[in-house]
Amino acid sequence: MKRLLSLVTFFIISSAISQNTDEAQLKSIYDTALTNGKGYDWLNHLSNQIGGRLSGSVQAQQAVDYTKSQLETLVGLDRVWLQPVMVPKWTRGLPEFAYFETEPGITTNVPICALGGSVSTPSIGIKTKVVEVKSLDDLAILGKQRLEGNIVFFNRPMDATEITTFTAYSGCVDQRYSGAAEAAKYGAVGVIVRSMNLRQDDFPHTGSMSYGDTPVKDRIPAAAISTNAADLLSISLSLNPDIKFYFKQNCQQYNDVQSYNVIGEIKGTTNPDEIIVVGGHLDSWDLGDGSHDDGVGCVQSMEVLRLLKETGYKPKRTLRVVLFMNEENGLRGGNKYAEVAKNKNEKHIFALESDAGGFSPRGFTFNCTDANFEKVQSWKSLFEPYLIHLFDRGFSGADIRPLNNDKMVLAGLRPDSQRYFDHHHAANDTFEHVNKRELQLGAATMASLVYLFDNYGIEEN
Amino acid sequence: MKRLLSLVTFFIISSAISQNTDEAQLKSIYDTALTNGKGYDWLNHLSNQIGGRLSGSVQAQQAVDYTKSQLETLVGLDRVWLQPVMVPKWTRGLPEFAYFETEPGITTNVPICALGGSVSTPSIGIKTKVVEVKSLDDLAILGKQRLEGNIVFFNRPMDATEITTFTAYSGCVDQRYSGAAEAAKYGAVGVIVRSMNLRQDDFPHTGSMSYGDTPVKDRIPAAAISTNAADLLSISLSLNPDIKFYFKQNCQQYNDVQSYNVIGEIKGTTNPDEIIVVGGHLDSWDLGDGSHDDGVGCVQSMEVLRLLKETGYKPKRTLRVVLFMNEENGLRGGNKYAEVAKNKNEKHIFALESDAGGFSPRGFTFNCTDANFEKVQSWKSLFEPYLIHLFDRGFSGADIRPLNNDKMVLAGLRPDSQRYFDHHHAANDTFEHVNKRELQLGAATMASLVYLFDNYGIEEN
Repeated sequence: MKRLLSLVTFFIISSAISQNTDEAQLKSIYDTALTNGKGYDWLNHLSNQIGGRLSGSVQAQQAVDYTKSQLETLVGLDRVWLQPVMVPKWTRGLPEFAYFETEPGITTNVPICALGGSVSTPSIGIKTKVVEVKSLDDLAILGKQRLEGNIVFFNRPMDATEITTFTAYSGCVDQRYSGAAEAAKYGAVGVIVRSMNLRQDDFPHTGSMSYGDTPVKDRIPAAAISTNAADLLSISLSLNPDIKFYFKQNCQQYNDVQSYNVIGEIKGTTNPDEIIVVGGHLDSWDLGDGSHDDGVGCVQSMEVLRLLKETGYKPKRTLRVVLFMNEENGLRGGNKYAEVAKNKNEKHIFALESDAGGFSPRGFTFNCTDANFEKVQSWKSLFEPYLIHLFDRGFSGADIRPLNNDKMVLAGLRPDSQRYFDHHHAANDTFEHVNKRELQLGAATMASLVYLFDNYGIEEN
Repeated sequence: MKRLLSLVTFFIISSAISQNTDEAQLKSIYDTALTNGKGYDWLNHLSNQIGGRLSGSVQAQQAVDYTKSQLETLVGLDRVWLQPVMVPKWTRGLPEFAYFETEPGITTNVPICALGGSVSTPSIGIKTKVVEVKSLDDLAILGKQRLEGNIVFFNRPMDATEITTFTAYSGCVDQRYSGAAEAAKYGAVGVIVRSMNLRQDDFPHTGSMSYGDTPVKDRIPAAAISTNAADLLSISLSLNPDIKFYFKQNCQQYNDVQSYNVIGEIKGTTNPDEIIVVGGHLDSWDLGDGSHDDGVGCVQSMEVLRLLKETGYKPKRTLRVVLFMNEENGLRGGNKYAEVAKNKNEKHIFALESDAGGFSPRGFTFNCTDANFEKVQSWKSLFEPYLIHLFDRGFSGADIRPLNNDKMVLAGLRPDSQRYFDHHHAANDTFEHVNKRELQLGAATMASLVYLFDNYGIEEN
């Protein structure tokens, strides 16, 4: 009985000690991030010295070189390397131009931008009637008779009543991704898509699209139009269905080019064969400087390793920061990393991605077993002092998803999402819209979760 | 036994029904706010058509007239009125000017602004040595010998490690509020205070100060300096303690003038004598347009009544929106409202203030009995779909605090606070820094809590 009591006392005490150690470690991480963070300076360079980093561009290569050199200057990393990956190269070319014509000679210019991966228009542009639809399903209803030779205008807005704006985005991105491939089947000659933006403004928002198995000769150009202009066009069409729409763009697809994932590593002390990955994607769209999407995710991921080192923590497991190339229009970096990991028979236990903007962090979403989700729930109280409350199941991140197996834990940082789509893939995704404290709080929140998974491992059953 | 079972079943079912009714009512409030909100348009007028609304100014009167007229157009309000209150009138006058001189003729201009309520400098300004301190306590240590005839430079920064930035603000606002009164005791001739801002930038932040019982003839001028300039001055002083500081301001205090609280009311159907107040303050500082502080709080409070009406809810208790005048430099409106309520023997059961910015809402802090705090905790799950997690005890709001008694519930909306002090009392507290969705989510969150207290009342024991 005495022995049992001692044992119970021992467990209570050691559990209290580890709780205190964890609290102290998190406090140290947050304090360091908020008083001596480096992420904002790195982002300043990525955004203002380099700028938009579309895969295959000079800027993407500059971003590879810059982040590699910064990781090499960090004290305590055991290894920094580049992982080669071939990526698509698409260029926007000269600025796009568009207007609609209510009667001959009466035109209204509207802001558009080519969707990523779109073909060019003929050099003189396209001018023809425009038919508004709200969904891909509308195409079959209207049929070839109404669509052939015309431009299709996809105008289903994001659902403002969704509290998480990413859910609203998922609800209409099919128009952008598949609109051109589907409309081409009915003989349409071009596609204009309402920007995925919850705000009324004048910024067109680009983003990836796919022609699927549409033969090259049948591919039609596709562009996004700003929300203000989409509403204006819609109202004008309701008054006069014979409106003609003109647009011109001269984007181009090239052969794949060589690029790289950038990787930095701290070797684990006791379980070096168990790997933890934290990452974001280094490429971005070309219209803005890619600060929120996803410069922030890259510098926060670099910051995770720096914060753990700076606070004196010695990782038990191997920690890797991975800056993935080509998330936006191919996911080649994410796929390559997973492929190499598989070929090398590496054991990844946890991967965390930050690719939802640099806003004030609210928590995480997880893709994992019940046992690991329970484990995460047991850590919630540690995060409460930092106003981190959200620990849900859900999507983790595009770049880490290819790594997934049925044992490991995947997670995504979830910052406040309300402002995200004001900037997403548009010319106003720029440095001045990132708040330094919010960025650093995100990095500290990530570092805290990485610390916990490193210290306690995952549940393997 | 059968009767007991029926009774239990009845309670379970009726509890489930009220849970469902509450869920549906909150959903309706949030949906209406996000798809058909009016707050942002009202704020646009207050900020961009009227602008900064310092007590006693023409703009403050315009804001009274505008909000009264808007409340009068709202369908379903039973009564709209102005509650007279005398307010102080202080004006900034011509723009301030300041520099420091490292050696004769070598000067560096720095951005400053007079603190609200400060006296003017002599018309030729003040130029003398400057002594840096970190706290009011430092004054006694340095004493008259070091301070007499000099300018005191209060330079204790906000603590970046505080997660809630209002806590960091509370930790250094004594320098601004009492710095001049304290420094005058040691013969100082002026006071310069580091802006209450967590960010490094070039905006000086004003705010209220008090001379306490300092005789008029002994009052010394006080100004805020931007964080960048504060750091530059501090470094320069460490290299050369003989630096001279020059500043000039010609602010002026006038006699009190007539102003008003703006009040709108919906009479309760079943408990009209129980009053619920929701409010913000209509006055603002003069440097920006007062969007976050506190135009947002005013339009959100107006929106609360509109949302409840719009969703078809019939309040049981009397609901009042109160737009308080003169929170910033006198609190005359809040005090007057409480005084009139007391004189009329009105029974206020709940008061809710929004005065912490228009950022994404996180929850509320409450000042109430244990029984009411428990009641609030039981509603937490209703707010979870809207990512509202914070239900803590704490400060409610300056304007509603004078109403307090030991029975009623006071609450403050708590939006994300990370960006708030970037804008607080500065020239960049402007409309474009408010996000429409974040504003409307705050209004819906407030309307939901008002609905719950209206529907269920408070615990009076």
